[in-house]
Amino acid sequence: MSSVDGVGTKLKIAGALDKHNTIGIDLVNHCVNDILTCGAEPLFFLDYIAMGKLVPEHVEAIAQGLAQACREVGCALIGGETAEMPGLYTGEDYDLVGFIIGVVEKEKIIMGKTIVVGDAIIGLPSSGLHTNGYSLVRKLFGVTQSVLNTHYPELGRTLGEELLEPHRCYYHQLKPLLPLIKGMAHITGGGLVDNVPRVLPQGVAAQLNSQAWTTHPIFHLIQQQGNVTQDEMYHVFNMGIGMVVICSPDDVGQLTKAIPEAKVIGKVVKQMGEARVIID
Amino acid sequence: MSSVDGVGTKLKIAGALDKHNTIGIDLVNHCVNDILTCGAEPLFFLDYIAMGKLVPEHVEAIAQGLAQACREVGCALIGGETAEMPGLYTGEDYDLVGFIIGVVEKEKIIMGKTIVVGDAIIGLPSSGLHTNGYSLVRKLFGVTQSVLNTHYPELGRTLGEELLEPHRCYYHQLKPLLPLIKGMAHITGGGLVDNVPRVLPQGVAAQLNSQAWTTHPIFHLIQQQGNVTQDEMYHVFNMGIGMVVICSPDDVGQLTKAIPEAKVIGKVVKQMGEARVIID
Repeated sequence: MSSVDGVGTKLKIAGALDKHNTIGIDLVNHCVNDILTCGAEPLFFLDYIAMGKLVPEHVEAIAQGLAQACREVGCALIGGETAEMPGLYTGEDYDLVGFIIGVVEKEKIIMGKTIVVGDAIIGLPSSGLHTNGYSLVRKLFGVTQSVLNTHYPELGRTLGEELLEPHRCYYHQLKPLLPLIKGMAHITGGGLVDNVPRVLPQGVAAQLNSQAWTTHPIFHLIQQQGNVTQDEMYHVFNMGIGMVVICSPDDVGQLTKAIPEAKVIGKVVKQMGEARVIID
Repeated sequence: MSSVDGVGTKLKIAGALDKHNTIGIDLVNHCVNDILTCGAEPLFFLDYIAMGKLVPEHVEAIAQGLAQACREVGCALIGGETAEMPGLYTGEDYDLVGFIIGVVEKEKIIMGKTIVVGDAIIGLPSSGLHTNGYSLVRKLFGVTQSVLNTHYPELGRTLGEELLEPHRCYYHQLKPLLPLIKGMAHITGGGLVDNVPRVLPQGVAAQLNSQAWTTHPIFHLIQQQGNVTQDEMYHVFNMGIGMVVICSPDDVGQLTKAIPEAKVIGKVVKQMGEARVIID
C-alpha cells in the first residue's frame, strides 16, 4: 500500500507566516490517513523538498515536523531528497511531497465491498481546513501579513493560526476499530461530495444530515467573505468532517463509545438518480 | 530499497521547448539507476506532478514518458498525484517527482565493503548531462527559444536537443553482472568527485585518469561558454561518465566484454591526504 501526496498551497500560508515546523506534520498525517482508508499501517515515509534556493532553517523546521509526525505513528522516515531549483520556485517558495508505504494483510484490506443499504455513516471531526481549499482561501482573503495576523473573535485566534492548524491524524483512534469498519473516506480535495463515493459500491448513495455535526467557524467565515455557494463549499472543503467511516448499524455503539467525538452523520441508501452523496 | 528524486531544472528546458514526453523517461531512469547502485531491481514507481494550472496535454505527455521507461525495466507504475497549485508555479512551470521501490536479497546488497586497494574502476558512458548541471547551463546560456534552437556543428544538433537527451538507464546492462560488482556510484549532482566516495570504504581513494574516456562535446561547449574551471566542471557535471562500477581486476575482462563501451577509468588506491577522488 503506498501513496504520494503534497500539501497544496497551504505551503503559501506557512511561507507568508514564516512558520515551517508544522507543514511537515500536515504532510505526514495526510499520507497516513490516505492509506489508513484501506486499513494500512504506515511503515516508511520519504520526503521531497524543492526550493529555489535552499534555506537551511526552513529545511530543518520542515524536517522537524516530518520527524515528529512520523514518530507519532511509528513510521520510519527513511529518506528523502532536497532539491535546489533556481528559476522554478520564486523567492522563498518551496514544494513539499511525501511518499508513504504501508502494509495491510490481504484479507484485511478495507475496500467498501460489503457496504449495504442501511449502513451507518460516521464522521470524525477535522481540525480545520486540513490541506484543502487553500487556493480558494488565498483568492478570497489574500495572504498578506496583515490579513493573516488579523484576530477573529469567532475563531478565537488569528486567521493565520487557524489556517496553519495541522491536518489531524486518525490512525491511533481508528486502528483498534478497523475490524468493525466496512469503508472509509479521507475527506480531501473535492470534499464529502467527491470523496465518499469512492468507497461506495455501485447502486448505493450516501445520505448525509448536515445538522448532525458542527461546521467550524472558519468555514462560515470563508463562505461570508467570498459569498461562496453552499454547493461550492461542500466541493472544496471538508466542512468539519476529516474522515468518514461506514459500518453496520450494529457496530455504531462500539465505535462512538471508543471515539466519543465521532457522530453518526448519515446512512447508506439506495441510489436514486445520479447523485452519490445527498446532503440535507 | 527505495528512493525519491526529481529531475531538477531540466524541466525548464522541456518547458522552453514545449516537449514533455521525455522528461518522464529522465525521472524513471534516474530513480532506477539510483537503487541499482545497491543491486536492487525496480518493482514499483509513483509520480507526483505539480503545476500552477493543469495542462492536460503536458500531464499526458509526461505520463507517457514515465510509462514507457517503467515498461522498459519491468517496473509497475502504480500511481501518483497530480496537484494544481496556483501561485506556487508560474505560467506553465511544473515540478515532477518520482518515488521508486525496489528489492534486493539481503546477502546480495552491494555496498562497497569489499573494495580494496588495487580494484579497478570502470566507467559507463552517459548520454549527456543526464539530470544534473542544468541550473548552471541556464545561467550561462539562458533558455530562450533562439538559444535552444541554435544548431552547433560540434553537437551535430541543436543545443535544446542535446540538453533534452534522456538520462540513460544502466539496468539491463548491469543486471547480469551484479555478482561481479563490489560497488557502484550513479554520477548525479556533485559529479564524480562527490558521488564516487560514497561507495568507498574508509582509507581508500579513487584515482581516475581523465584521458581514459571521452568527454562529450557538450561539456567542452559549456566550459568555453562560461569560462568554467575544470574543477567546477567535475563538481557539477558527470563529464561523460554516468555510472561507475568497481570490481576486482580479475573481473575486468568479463565486464568489459559484456559491455564493450565500458572503460577502465581508474583504480582504487590508498588514501593519502584528504582527497577521496584524484583526477589526473
